[in-house]
Amino acid sequence: MSARAGIVVTGTEVLTGRIADRNGPWIADRLLELGVELAHITICGDRAHDIEAQLRFLADEGVDLIVTSGGLGPTADDMTVATVARFCGRELVLDDELEAKIAAILKNLMSRIGEADFEAVRAANRKQAMVPVGAVVMDPVGTAPGVVVSGKPTVVVLPGPPRELQPMWRTAVELPAVRDAIAGRTIYRQDTVRMFGLPESGLAETLRDAEQHLSDFGALEITTCLRRGELEIVTRYEPDATDTYSKLVEMLRDRHGQHIFSEDGSTVDDQVAQLLTGRRIATAESCTGGLLAARLTERKGSSAYLAGGLVAYANDAKTDLLGVDPALIEAHGAVSEPVAEAMAAGALDRFQADTAVAITGIAGPDGGTHEKPVGTVCFTVALADRESSTRTLRLPGNRADIRERSTTVAMHLLRRALSDDKD
Amino acid sequence: MSARAGIVVTGTEVLTGRIADRNGPWIADRLLELGVELAHITICGDRAHDIEAQLRFLADEGVDLIVTSGGLGPTADDMTVATVARFCGRELVLDDELEAKIAAILKNLMSRIGEADFEAVRAANRKQAMVPVGAVVMDPVGTAPGVVVSGKPTVVVLPGPPRELQPMWRTAVELPAVRDAIAGRTIYRQDTVRMFGLPESGLAETLRDAEQHLSDFGALEITTCLRRGELEIVTRYEPDATDTYSKLVEMLRDRHGQHIFSEDGSTVDDQVAQLLTGRRIATAESCTGGLLAARLTERKGSSAYLAGGLVAYANDAKTDLLGVDPALIEAHGAVSEPVAEAMAAGALDRFQADTAVAITGIAGPDGGTHEKPVGTVCFTVALADRESSTRTLRLPGNRADIRERSTTVAMHLLRRALSDDKD
Repeated sequence: MSARAGIVVTGTEVLTGRIADRNGPWIADRLLELGVELAHITICGDRAHDIEAQLRFLADEGVDLIVTSGGLGPTADDMTVATVARFCGRELVLDDELEAKIAAILKNLMSRIGEADFEAVRAANRKQAMVPVGAVVMDPVGTAPGVVVSGKPTVVVLPGPPRELQPMWRTAVELPAVRDAIAGRTIYRQDTVRMFGLPESGLAETLRDAEQHLSDFGALEITTCLRRGELEIVTRYEPDATDTYSKLVEMLRDRHGQHIFSEDGSTVDDQVAQLLTGRRIATAESCTGGLLAARLTERKGSSAYLAGGLVAYANDAKTDLLGVDPALIEAHGAVSEPVAEAMAAGALDRFQADTAVAITGIAGPDGGTHEKPVGTVCFTVALADRESSTRTLRLPGNRADIRERSTTVAMHLLRRALSDDKD
Repeated sequence: MSARAGIVVTGTEVLTGRIADRNGPWIADRLLELGVELAHITICGDRAHDIEAQLRFLADEGVDLIVTSGGLGPTADDMTVATVARFCGRELVLDDELEAKIAAILKNLMSRIGEADFEAVRAANRKQAMVPVGAVVMDPVGTAPGVVVSGKPTVVVLPGPPRELQPMWRTAVELPAVRDAIAGRTIYRQDTVRMFGLPESGLAETLRDAEQHLSDFGALEITTCLRRGELEIVTRYEPDATDTYSKLVEMLRDRHGQHIFSEDGSTVDDQVAQLLTGRRIATAESCTGGLLAARLTERKGSSAYLAGGLVAYANDAKTDLLGVDPALIEAHGAVSEPVAEAMAAGALDRFQADTAVAITGIAGPDGGTHEKPVGTVCFTVALADRESSTRTLRLPGNRADIRERSTTVAMHLLRRALSDDKD
């Protein structure tokens, strides 16, 4: 016995790609944590027929739980609650108490943003207080309430903005209606091995060998994913297959030990943050234009080790602000190992840092030459107390790919340099 | 008559949110350009049953075309071609010519990355040369070929990596099998109005009025989307509803003129890039940690106007590298209007720029106070030949939201300052 779920993401702006859906993946993660098997995510526009067809499809596939996101707003293209009500065979009724709550929220909002015509806005939002008969109502996080309609399947209706959806999901999973729907869930383990620099076909071969040599291999649900040079192997298994998983990890270590950088779920960002404890880092970026500094500052508390960074896009910014000798640029070009080294040295000096990373490259689409084609990127990691290390790579893809991948490569070079330093 | 399509995205890594799907939205855009109505995007894991259920669902919904992405690789969890063959009632056969092509590609790849065991890898990839009987084969862009199986619906099978999928899609749409499937397409127009700073409920009211006052309002398919303070109104309509659309735009201008920044599909990024022609800009960022510089350098050719940027995360970086008077930080705090102004002035000076943007704020989760809660962000836009303009905002959301939204706000303040400058 197990519990299966489906996710219905509504919104023409999501279907047509004008905004990227963040809710499907987020709910998927939460379901996985709960041990609920996610079968399908479906996305459709703001059309009642299509929403209903997706609900029907998931019900026909026998899922126990459907979670919908979006379509709870005040505009006419928001129709999820009404569609779910029809699908579940329930009438829509005005919930007076809920209407009063929404009105109070709006009044407060209006007073803050100083909108004059409160009554008109309130009328627009009255629709949001219409709920299916017998549904459990979840109070708004923004202005839209959510609902849960019990049945086979049980349907949880959540608002589209992630900031509203996420707290409301936490409310939903505590409700008896939802707990009952997923009562059959299995507790899975999930473990992740991350590698850097191994081609996917090399891993495929190892996995085929594992299939032949590990007797209980079928108990492991393995998915692999290659992304910007990082290869992620995620394995899901029931607790009694733990030994089989350990054997798989041993095989991976034997064959690809030098490529494995994480077996505990940690990302390179986690590891770099850890390794930077007690240090002071500065960045010097050209083609990545600030992406590395932005990535390092994504995490809270990064001010403890990040002094700052310089985006030296123009050559005179490299010379004036990082002290790169113009003769070096003249002799080797701005994209060259000597310039990367000088940029890193400049960052160490100017930010009074003990750790620096410099990136200079050609992200394209223009600026490539026969000798230095688009994708050529030079990296230097400099530690105050050691020799710096410099590498040049040719990265594939378009401008965005090259910039992102350069940032990831820089993170890995930094991780290696700081790990060596600890040895 | 019209043509409808569905997209099936396969991959457990996508379903479980470990990687974000970029193919669904991209194909959605291409279909829209072609005048093909996209009804559904469905996502499932690497499970034959679920893939087949989705194909069946879309066929039952009467779509003319199904496009699949992913599951064409060499590993055992790649099963899309076999599943599509079964769904279409076709046998799988080895395509010798295709096998030779894949072998040649692999040989070349191996020689570049220096992998020794070519035969093993080749065997792993032989599976990729198995195609449904009678299918049209599209040559690999990477190592995976695509296939088109004609029928009702016609199925186009594309590889998962966007770099491979995108060129192959361009091949696919030129094939007679695909042209025939979408022969019933309607040519729609699609126009976009973008606003900044208007709450969604204000727009909802205007749209309700438009519904009452515009006789042919039903001919407009309007979707609205609020994202980081930007409100996007996308309208799709057949050419004979052009007048109705013009009247809608007039209503929007009348009521929300000061909020509209784009009526021609241009983004704030497009407009800022245009306005920066002939100028030299530098950034000075604290809480956004390089995101603004990274955003400005996303676009090719940005080196023509971006000198560089400073990420001044630590206070001493603000004083040493931007020349902010430490007494100013002492008196007002690092997150204050005087410090934002000094940072912008410093950026103008150090980068010898004529345009500068400074951002200093509290992205959280720590560091907020009663007086300056998390989300407090100060912005200065400085133009060399004019007085600078400074604003303080309180932005909602978590650390990532605040950083992203600050970047967007900075783009709009920059746009306004540069537009005023042109008047």
